Amino acid sequence: MTNINSFGIIGGDKRQLYCAKSMADDGYGVYICGFEKCDTLLGMELSDIDTVLENADAVILPLPATKDGITLNAPLSDKVIELDKLFEMIQDKPVFCGMSLPFEKKNIFYYGTREEFAVANAVPTSEGAVETAMLEYDGTVNNSKCLVAGYGRIGRVLSDMLAGLGADVTVCARSLKDLEFIKAKGFHAVNTNDIHGKYDIIFNTVPYMIFNAHILAKTALNALVIDLASMPGGVDFSAAKRLNIKAVHALSLPGKVAPKSSGIIIKNAVYNIIREEHL
Amino acid sequence: MTNINSFGIIGGDKRQLYCAKSMADDGYGVYICGFEKCDTLLGMELSDIDTVLENADAVILPLPATKDGITLNAPLSDKVIELDKLFEMIQDKPVFCGMSLPFEKKNIFYYGTREEFAVANAVPTSEGAVETAMLEYDGTVNNSKCLVAGYGRIGRVLSDMLAGLGADVTVCARSLKDLEFIKAKGFHAVNTNDIHGKYDIIFNTVPYMIFNAHILAKTALNALVIDLASMPGGVDFSAAKRLNIKAVHALSLPGKVAPKSSGIIIKNAVYNIIREEHL
Amino acid sequence: MTNINSFGIIGGDKRQLYCAKSMADDGYGVYICGFEKCDTLLGMELSDIDTVLENADAVILPLPATKDGITLNAPLSDKVIELDKLFEMIQDKPVFCGMSLPFEKKNIFYYGTREEFAVANAVPTSEGAVETAMLEYDGTVNNSKCLVAGYGRIGRVLSDMLAGLGADVTVCARSLKDLEFIKAKGFHAVNTNDIHGKYDIIFNTVPYMIFNAHILAKTALNALVIDLASMPGGVDFSAAKRLNIKAVHALSLPGKVAPKSSGIIIKNAVYNIIREEHL
Amino acid sequence: MTNINSFGIIGGDKRQLYCAKSMADDGYGVYICGFEKCDTLLGMELSDIDTVLENADAVILPLPATKDGITLNAPLSDKVIELDKLFEMIQDKPVFCGMSLPFEKKNIFYYGTREEFAVANAVPTSEGAVETAMLEYDGTVNNSKCLVAGYGRIGRVLSDMLAGLGADVTVCARSLKDLEFIKAKGFHAVNTNDIHGKYDIIFNTVPYMIFNAHILAKTALNALVIDLASMPGGVDFSAAKRLNIKAVHALSLPGKVAPKSSGIIIKNAVYNIIREEHL
Repeated sequence: MTNINSFGIIGGDKRQLYCAKSMADDGYGVYICGFEKCDTLLGMELSDIDTVLENADAVILPLPATKDGITLNAPLSDKVIELDKLFEMIQDKPVFCGMSLPFEKKNIFYYGTREEFAVANAVPTSEGAVETAMLEYDGTVNNSKCLVAGYGRIGRVLSDMLAGLGADVTVCARSLKDLEFIKAKGFHAVNTNDIHGKYDIIFNTVPYMIFNAHILAKTALNALVIDLASMPGGVDFSAAKRLNIKAVHALSLPGKVAPKSSGIIIKNAVYNIIREEHL
Repeated sequence: MTNINSFGIIGGDKRQLYCAKSMADDGYGVYICGFEKCDTLLGMELSDIDTVLENADAVILPLPATKDGITLNAPLSDKVIELDKLFEMIQDKPVFCGMSLPFEKKNIFYYGTREEFAVANAVPTSEGAVETAMLEYDGTVNNSKCLVAGYGRIGRVLSDMLAGLGADVTVCARSLKDLEFIKAKGFHAVNTNDIHGKYDIIFNTVPYMIFNAHILAKTALNALVIDLASMPGGVDFSAAKRLNIKAVHALSLPGKVAPKSSGIIIKNAVYNIIREEHL
Repeated sequence: MTNINSFGIIGGDKRQLYCAKSMADDGYGVYICGFEKCDTLLGMELSDIDTVLENADAVILPLPATKDGITLNAPLSDKVIELDKLFEMIQDKPVFCGMSLPFEKKNIFYYGTREEFAVANAVPTSEGAVETAMLEYDGTVNNSKCLVAGYGRIGRVLSDMLAGLGADVTVCARSLKDLEFIKAKGFHAVNTNDIHGKYDIIFNTVPYMIFNAHILAKTALNALVIDLASMPGGVDFSAAKRLNIKAVHALSLPGKVAPKSSGIIIKNAVYNIIREEHL
Repeated sequence: MTNINSFGIIGGDKRQLYCAKSMADDGYGVYICGFEKCDTLLGMELSDIDTVLENADAVILPLPATKDGITLNAPLSDKVIELDKLFEMIQDKPVFCGMSLPFEKKNIFYYGTREEFAVANAVPTSEGAVETAMLEYDGTVNNSKCLVAGYGRIGRVLSDMLAGLGADVTVCARSLKDLEFIKAKGFHAVNTNDIHGKYDIIFNTVPYMIFNAHILAKTALNALVIDLASMPGGVDFSAAKRLNIKAVHALSLPGKVAPKSSGIIIKNAVYNIIREEHL
């Protein structure tokens, strides 16, 4: 980490601010821009974009860097920053951004597609799921019957959290290997093809239709259903409505429930890239 | 439980409704009144007070039964029910109410002062504390440094929940015995007279001033402080404000965060009284 | 802790040696005697009894200090030390011993009757119970159905350990308060008067007859029963034999399974006495 | 599972007996042979090999099926069974055996190489590791500082168990992804290239040399080292001896510590094969 001594953080939400703050705490020079509308700058000062690019050895853009393909994703800014103009100004400096951009550029690195980044984000996602359950369910999570569908990153972290709160945890999965890991935890293990029983709270993490009308009617009457899978999710929301089941599609939880932790996760991913790429 | 086959639930908040619902699910006749303004009756029907008292073998009043000493505590009702009139109508039927009333009456029983009731309520209180932490703290509870002050009912349940979410848990207590129980859990154990270190989230459960300006400055800078102790609590809130520390006095959590579980806790306490008193 | 700068540890088993070692690591002068037959001295040197008493500011005797009322309990010594002769030599120096002696003496303090000492010892006792279960049971503790009878110190620590290993834990107790604490942990809570179901491993911590022939036949066929309650225990061992149930009376576990931790627990109790008594 | 209604279990240790017993409990016809020297037959009867092969629809051989390539692995038998003679008698019946044999055969299936079998066995292996630690370490696992090297199947299950017992758990791994999963659990996460600190108990699960003289001297003085990795393991045992560090190579734990659970794991793997292969 010899050549990069300062970062410019441009655009994005509070996560980027916390990423900047944490980098400053680590001793880096940090220049931020695009946060005029934020209620706090965490003790940092805003710069204009020219100052940022003049001083920063590398640039960090948000996740996603753009929503329309043309302008930077900067919901806390009151200015519009055009992407091609921005990249012209950046020149050959290293750029870290969330996910692949619609054009090529030298020295561009993606932190949002890294595996350890995804695992780390399973933590705020799972906590956001627990928080949603606590807000929406009239009983306690403690001693409730919870079903977690899927035992990938989120299923693994979430089921541990629920058990830690004293819930009665069932996890369904398809692979025999995952079912053994689930049993080893002392949870009830059920094959996804054979979901049965009644639950108080159901968490889906699987990105295809599992909770259709039939399964909802069988397992979720009087239950709260929280779908954590990205669009289109794994829950038939219109069937849930017909059946009078409260169903919530909870997306993008890390940035919403824990911008501080999420910002540090971005920082760590950037550091990992710098180490691996000898930047 | 031979003589009581039906209950009249009069006044109170959603907890009482859930208590009624759960009793109905157990097979009891249930008559409710005083919930006109509630958004749901959980599938039950309202009765007028005469019908309730005509049909119910026993009456359940809320916790507290009165706030002004004169009228029934019935925040979901649009009528005013005077206590002495009510008790005249009740005559000698058994009455279960939360805490001691300003007058004597035959056949009156208090569920709110029972020890198992207090322990059971430590669960929704602790979950409410966790929920508050998740809502107010910008990071995740997972991997945050948490301090729980006090190892009574709430401290015991809450510290387990925090550890179950993956927090780094320190508990402070005064009794050597409690400190050993805390160590046995694998938590950091600290004498309350010797609180030190910096924390991300501090939970106070002790009903006297522990977190004065000096202790707050030493342990809580940049922290979130949640006081769970009943008034006046154990946190110097004005000092917290001066020090720019976010401090929340979170009271009466069970009814707010988990009316369903809280209602069942009331039901269980009533059943326990009936069993013990051979009613 | 100003006046006591050195300790003489006389008699007892390996726990006393570890107590001595840990005190030496804390910087105290430590003189030991009565361990000639021990396979290790943990790097310390033996002294004769005169040297010990000449140099030590205070004396630590084992738990129990005597088994016959006449001689010191010194199973690792090849000499016989008579109690009254010993106390004559000790004169007025503070003496710390496990439990009450058959005579009076000035400056004598009992570490074995302290509450925090009992709680701390619940940890090695519980681990010893787990170890016994692992040795005697042909299956894994993980996913076994375990019943813990009693929710005092040992029941509390042991049930957490079993759950931590992935067992399916049921705890029975009599007090409504304890039953609520058990439920809060997410365990199955059963009234001791109403034990039912079949278990793989049963741990008794209650010092009166619970597991009579009737209860054993109902709950423990093919089970392993481990009685942790002091004599006479709470298990009908002859009934167990008749019923072909493997039953183990596991006593004095701390010294057997974890002399190091047990020695440190003794040390901590001695330190606590010194602090409280301003010795 | 239509065509196989009975199993012949020939040879192996107590695991095979428990496998047979559990299959009998499931309603299958079960014929066993090769267990003359076992202290118990779990209520089953021995048959001679001809009876077994006459009656059984399928045959289960142990893991490994042979140690010398010529005779069946049957440590509890007082007869020698030659493999080629055995297979001649078996003819075309399905055979389930642990690992690949030195010759080809129609209708042979290997349960020991299946992934879910390996995961399931991580449980008795981890419990055996805990049991070994309890037996060999003079303190309690509770509050000991434990290092687990590797976060594969065993590392994952073992670290949860240690934490469940109240240990202070550090896990080292190499992949950034695993390090994030470790952190999510609330454990200390350390890169394997950067192991540091002092530990009380070290568990190695990685099958290459990590704990060389240098690392042992740095982290394991006064520690207990338990190597769970298959030969040659990951610990320099001669260096450990030189350094006076107690080091144990604990192999083949499932059959030793939990033959019952291990037998059921074999049974489940056989059932899974039957389902997948439509036997």
